[in-house]
Amino acid sequence: MDSLFADRINDVPRSFIREILKVALDPSIISFAGGLPNRDFFPADELQQATQKAFAHSGKDLLQYSSSEGFLPLRQWIADRYRQTQGLEVSPDSILITSGSQQGLDLLGKVLLNEGDGLLMEAPGYLGAIQAFSIYRPEFINVAVDGLGMVIEELDRRLANHSPKLAYTVPNFQNPSGISYSDANREAVADRLRGKPCVLIEDNPYGDLRFSGSPTRSFYDLLPDQTVLLGSFSKCVIPGFRLGWLVAPDALMQKLLVAKQATDLHTSHFTQCIVHQYLQDNDIDAHIRTIVDAYGGQCRAMIAAMERHFPASVHYTRPDGGMFLWATLPDGLSAMALFEEAVKQQVVFVPGDPFYSDRENSSTLRLSFSCVDDDTIEVGIERLGLAIKKMMEAQS
Amino acid sequence: MDSLFADRINDVPRSFIREILKVALDPSIISFAGGLPNRDFFPADELQQATQKAFAHSGKDLLQYSSSEGFLPLRQWIADRYRQTQGLEVSPDSILITSGSQQGLDLLGKVLLNEGDGLLMEAPGYLGAIQAFSIYRPEFINVAVDGLGMVIEELDRRLANHSPKLAYTVPNFQNPSGISYSDANREAVADRLRGKPCVLIEDNPYGDLRFSGSPTRSFYDLLPDQTVLLGSFSKCVIPGFRLGWLVAPDALMQKLLVAKQATDLHTSHFTQCIVHQYLQDNDIDAHIRTIVDAYGGQCRAMIAAMERHFPASVHYTRPDGGMFLWATLPDGLSAMALFEEAVKQQVVFVPGDPFYSDRENSSTLRLSFSCVDDDTIEVGIERLGLAIKKMMEAQS
Repeated sequence: MDSLFADRINDVPRSFIREILKVALDPSIISFAGGLPNRDFFPADELQQATQKAFAHSGKDLLQYSSSEGFLPLRQWIADRYRQTQGLEVSPDSILITSGSQQGLDLLGKVLLNEGDGLLMEAPGYLGAIQAFSIYRPEFINVAVDGLGMVIEELDRRLANHSPKLAYTVPNFQNPSGISYSDANREAVADRLRGKPCVLIEDNPYGDLRFSGSPTRSFYDLLPDQTVLLGSFSKCVIPGFRLGWLVAPDALMQKLLVAKQATDLHTSHFTQCIVHQYLQDNDIDAHIRTIVDAYGGQCRAMIAAMERHFPASVHYTRPDGGMFLWATLPDGLSAMALFEEAVKQQVVFVPGDPFYSDRENSSTLRLSFSCVDDDTIEVGIERLGLAIKKMMEAQS
Repeated sequence: MDSLFADRINDVPRSFIREILKVALDPSIISFAGGLPNRDFFPADELQQATQKAFAHSGKDLLQYSSSEGFLPLRQWIADRYRQTQGLEVSPDSILITSGSQQGLDLLGKVLLNEGDGLLMEAPGYLGAIQAFSIYRPEFINVAVDGLGMVIEELDRRLANHSPKLAYTVPNFQNPSGISYSDANREAVADRLRGKPCVLIEDNPYGDLRFSGSPTRSFYDLLPDQTVLLGSFSKCVIPGFRLGWLVAPDALMQKLLVAKQATDLHTSHFTQCIVHQYLQDNDIDAHIRTIVDAYGGQCRAMIAAMERHFPASVHYTRPDGGMFLWATLPDGLSAMALFEEAVKQQVVFVPGDPFYSDRENSSTLRLSFSCVDDDTIEVGIERLGLAIKKMMEAQS
């Protein structure tokens, strides 16, 4: 059987995350590893009511095959929301409903990437994107991100030698690092790509989860003809429905529709109708504020605990939103080695390696604050601090 | 933008079906074109009850991210059913829940097909499979199917010159032709592929919809180590949830899981739980019998009408199940040309071309009997007979 596999599947990095999640099942372990939204905020009762209403209104219409584009009223809602919250003019015809925004990545890879095509990737960057694109065997062109966004000098050096066809970004509260691109950084990135044969992906699952700082400009505003927007209901409503969307220019949308049809015909019509009903009947902004207040508090608690328990030589980001922050160990300390020590101290995180397409034994790690309360954060960060100190002592 | 598209997407055949479905929206047109299950049989009330029960039992557990493999109790139900209905021993660990069985095709193409790899394809064959596999740019190795299954002499000729890595079959009530492989034909096909480095796909969305004849052996029984089974809840429960599954050997399953994760993480956990609850609480066999009785009657009505209204030189299949039958016009008559005449007579069907990877102006056509009552069948087939006669007169 082994000889039968396509080359593309052998290039996909194996997910270390699955192993971590197994460790995290032990209830004595404190986990900052997961990437899950906090289930305390899932609007289960409201979704149950929306489901009953959808059955009552639409009956069997909920249950038949449907269009590849997705449910038009839901696409209209998304278009309206882009106008209201970001001042962006997006037509419902430019929106494709996807089975989670992960599928948007797969469809974009499918439609745009020939083997060896250049793909500009944030380093560190979202591991699900690295996985999705690896299938199509691009050349990863990695550009470091720092606290302000892409490191422009590095971007310039890469563009001097490469012509990426795709550029992948998570400019708001990035997974894994929690950083956001400043407006000046967005403008600089847009300037570099404007007019080039390159599509920029703005993947924005966390954009609504801002707990400090000021809103920034979308790349769609800066590079309207070259930007694809990805969005998701996973972080602000629920993830289990697998509902996301993408916004793409017309010519690209025609190809994406062909790919969508060939891939799974269409996304569940039933769940689209339920979410649409939920959005009609509930104040999504109030719901988001509840989530943001909690995540903001948890993020501040984690940073305060790190200030108390981590050696001063450990650096970390201070996100304005989202679910993650990112720590950098003193030079030479491997986060993968720290992971083993941390398990002994009964705390886990995700080592940085899977967030790079090309790195091993990096000294970075991702910490998630979305699903842990303040007391758990205090205990877990204290344990992690102890593990770091042990590692540093062993090394010196 | 056009210069940016990947080669693979330009190879995917454009779907003529979308155009047909637009024509079919006109209420004065009788449509035998659709491939939809009959919505009269959607168990909307039972699914609504199942949904309420699932919310009551599982609450927020319904709504979180879940495993790529799919909901274990649903996989167990599928395994049990293989044992009960076909005597097949399938482990739940060998089952992957997919977003419709269309996604099974995409994942198999992704994991197995390098560009130029050989793909044995039924001619005619399921157009969704032709679309899904085209993305991965295989060499289509077409083998004709007749009333008994694959034409073995043609299969032998193809295998003398080609080594297909994948063989795609719909052995029960095939889409588009309605034909089924005989047991002898299955054994002959299995004999030809046994021990070769080739995976056979048995796509079986219609297998439960038998209204005459006797059950046949699964390829999984004949070629256990080389067969992948595809199944679907779309035809016997509802299509709108987009729920299917595949059964694959271990080594292949590991790769399929990587591909599934990269493609959309997992299929909606919510809809999996609802369908599982529905299956626990309802007699699915009784439900299937209701559908089968209706489809069987409609198929017989269509054949009887064709005997009355079609010229004797038109041939057609006589299916033992499923949703489709297949007609062949006298030599030289193009079904695509007939389509235009048929629209004038206010009846539509799907011309045969999209069911071949390599053919134009074929003289074959697909007729669906699943969604039309006896009176509509009588009027529609009379109109189609008239259109055929007009075409024949114009030609002679």
